[in-house]
Amino acid sequence: MPEIHSARRARAQEQLSKFGVDAALVTSGANVRYLTGLVSSNAAVLLPADGEAKLATDSRYSGTAERDCYDLDLILERDVAEAAVSEALLGGLSSIGFEDRDLTVLRHKALVDLDDPEPGAGHRSLELVPLGGLLDKLRMVKDDTEIELLAQACQITGQAFSQMLGMLRPGVTERQYAIALERAMVDLGAEGPAFGTIVASGPNGAIGHHVPTDRPFQAGDLVTVDCGAKVDGYHADMTRTVAIGEPADWQREIYELVAQAQAAGVAAARVGADLADVDAAARDLICAAGHGDYFSHGLGHGVGLAIHEAPWLAQNETGTLQDRVPITIEPGIYLAGAGGVRIEDTLVVRAGTGAAGSAQSLTTITRELLVL
Amino acid sequence: MPEIHSARRARAQEQLSKFGVDAALVTSGANVRYLTGLVSSNAAVLLPADGEAKLATDSRYSGTAERDCYDLDLILERDVAEAAVSEALLGGLSSIGFEDRDLTVLRHKALVDLDDPEPGAGHRSLELVPLGGLLDKLRMVKDDTEIELLAQACQITGQAFSQMLGMLRPGVTERQYAIALERAMVDLGAEGPAFGTIVASGPNGAIGHHVPTDRPFQAGDLVTVDCGAKVDGYHADMTRTVAIGEPADWQREIYELVAQAQAAGVAAARVGADLADVDAAARDLICAAGHGDYFSHGLGHGVGLAIHEAPWLAQNETGTLQDRVPITIEPGIYLAGAGGVRIEDTLVVRAGTGAAGSAQSLTTITRELLVL
Repeated sequence: MPEIHSARRARAQEQLSKFGVDAALVTSGANVRYLTGLVSSNAAVLLPADGEAKLATDSRYSGTAERDCYDLDLILERDVAEAAVSEALLGGLSSIGFEDRDLTVLRHKALVDLDDPEPGAGHRSLELVPLGGLLDKLRMVKDDTEIELLAQACQITGQAFSQMLGMLRPGVTERQYAIALERAMVDLGAEGPAFGTIVASGPNGAIGHHVPTDRPFQAGDLVTVDCGAKVDGYHADMTRTVAIGEPADWQREIYELVAQAQAAGVAAARVGADLADVDAAARDLICAAGHGDYFSHGLGHGVGLAIHEAPWLAQNETGTLQDRVPITIEPGIYLAGAGGVRIEDTLVVRAGTGAAGSAQSLTTITRELLVL
Repeated sequence: MPEIHSARRARAQEQLSKFGVDAALVTSGANVRYLTGLVSSNAAVLLPADGEAKLATDSRYSGTAERDCYDLDLILERDVAEAAVSEALLGGLSSIGFEDRDLTVLRHKALVDLDDPEPGAGHRSLELVPLGGLLDKLRMVKDDTEIELLAQACQITGQAFSQMLGMLRPGVTERQYAIALERAMVDLGAEGPAFGTIVASGPNGAIGHHVPTDRPFQAGDLVTVDCGAKVDGYHADMTRTVAIGEPADWQREIYELVAQAQAAGVAAARVGADLADVDAAARDLICAAGHGDYFSHGLGHGVGLAIHEAPWLAQNETGTLQDRVPITIEPGIYLAGAGGVRIEDTLVVRAGTGAAGSAQSLTTITRELLVL
């Protein structure tokens, strides 16, 4: 929908004017998609602070770009960043902001080399200015359409998880279950999984980003399932840990601790809350119980067109939560050799809904320990 | 298998000595995997020209790294590149080669900032040297294990394609077929698809990188299917264009032309052949028939731990083909609004097998036009 994307570009242009560059070179896939709708592994947007944007991509994507981005001038070249900056220079734009979080050193050098070797003929010298997260931050607060797509992705995730509970039984392997769960998400309307599903059973549960193996589930296992559906580019992210057979006391104990920490994190995730305080709300409980060393990652992250994006809920982060920001809350405890627990929801922080200023869970599967 | 990876590191170290740096900072996922076996979205290898390598990754991957890379010193930090370069500086290494094709401007700046602000205390100043494709080139010539994995991936690709031929019929949508084909590859043992399957029917066939839609196949369509299985990190890549119902003359004509060009490209892909000449062998035929403007991409590319890697078969490329280099040969003709044809095989260039010095096809589905 070109209107949505042109409105987003207008917001970006305001920021560029304030930042004080003539134009931005947008190269990250998520930001190109956000500003134009184009999904491409090789595209760049030249967005002047004032005037019309140009979209550079190669011939593989030209048909799609012509169909979906008909309101934009297209530049068809393989070296999209160089082509876009050449256009900028031709148009008299010389200070160009670039995504230093995305652009490689090699591509940056190619841009530097574009600068006119013979100055003096009225040509201003190219100045490349790192934009930091300026454009990423534009994506942090979501509009209604985006929140609706995230809600759909989360709804599919939960429904697929519920449908596949029967496969969480002794003898089924981590990999068999992961494949079945991803297929269920697609059959329910997802374009695919938001990321490679993590299924970590028994001792593998101590590995945060475990790749599913041929290990069969066994009675006595805790099994951590970290999964999400992707809908129209928007990523759901949910983790549940279940028990196969009656859990041991230590398993119940760490489960209850993580569940309490997760609830505390969710309760703290309100409009205006400091990011580090939300992390602390969950982390303090785990630390107080003596497991602080085994909660080895941040509490959560933003989700949207990227599976991990701003804001970051972690120790030492600065900034506050705003209205319409989707985040995950996902504390965990990982005991090497024994197993682990992680519980994660995708939520959207909202002003004035329900308990005013609280976060609304988009993933709604129970956080009680499921004993299967 | 630590021996394989330590042998690869030894080869890399020889190159680093010749290149004249104290160490390399390896950051690209494919090269980290090639040199250590670790699959991680956040890892870096510090490889000294002389001495033992160190592997930096974060806590999410520590369990896997300890299990699979037990012969390597581990550094557990979130900022893996900075942690690895700090270690290098502590160890007296100061000229560090880095992957300028992979490292972002932001991460590069963080490394520059590591340099000792108060020189003079015996500390040599950090020198960061772009490595270009030095490490990527090491991956170009494959060993027997790698060729076997590619062959498996190609075999699965062909078998899945054959199994799913029955779905290439009127009424089935591009997306339904793509999902079924990817599932068949997984059921046959693939870890997943090597890339998002392209299914481009009728006029969509003119879009090189078309994303499958809900368009149902229709009698009279040419349908281009570009697909591949991934096995243990190795990527197959195969394209076939089939006709649904009896093709029109223009469809047969461009099909035959692409098939001839593809065969000419395969025949030219011999040990010692110039990369640009292989491209020309196919392209000249298409140009001579007046369709040169509609073959808008290079003839092919290397495949391995990345779906696109060195060498590149294209106009203006320099270099020659070597023994044990897997490549694709994939000419195409794309007629906007009407449709397109692409035929692609994954081959491995071999010295002295069969017709001495010729390429051996790993994908073996017929290149005759299938009329379904």
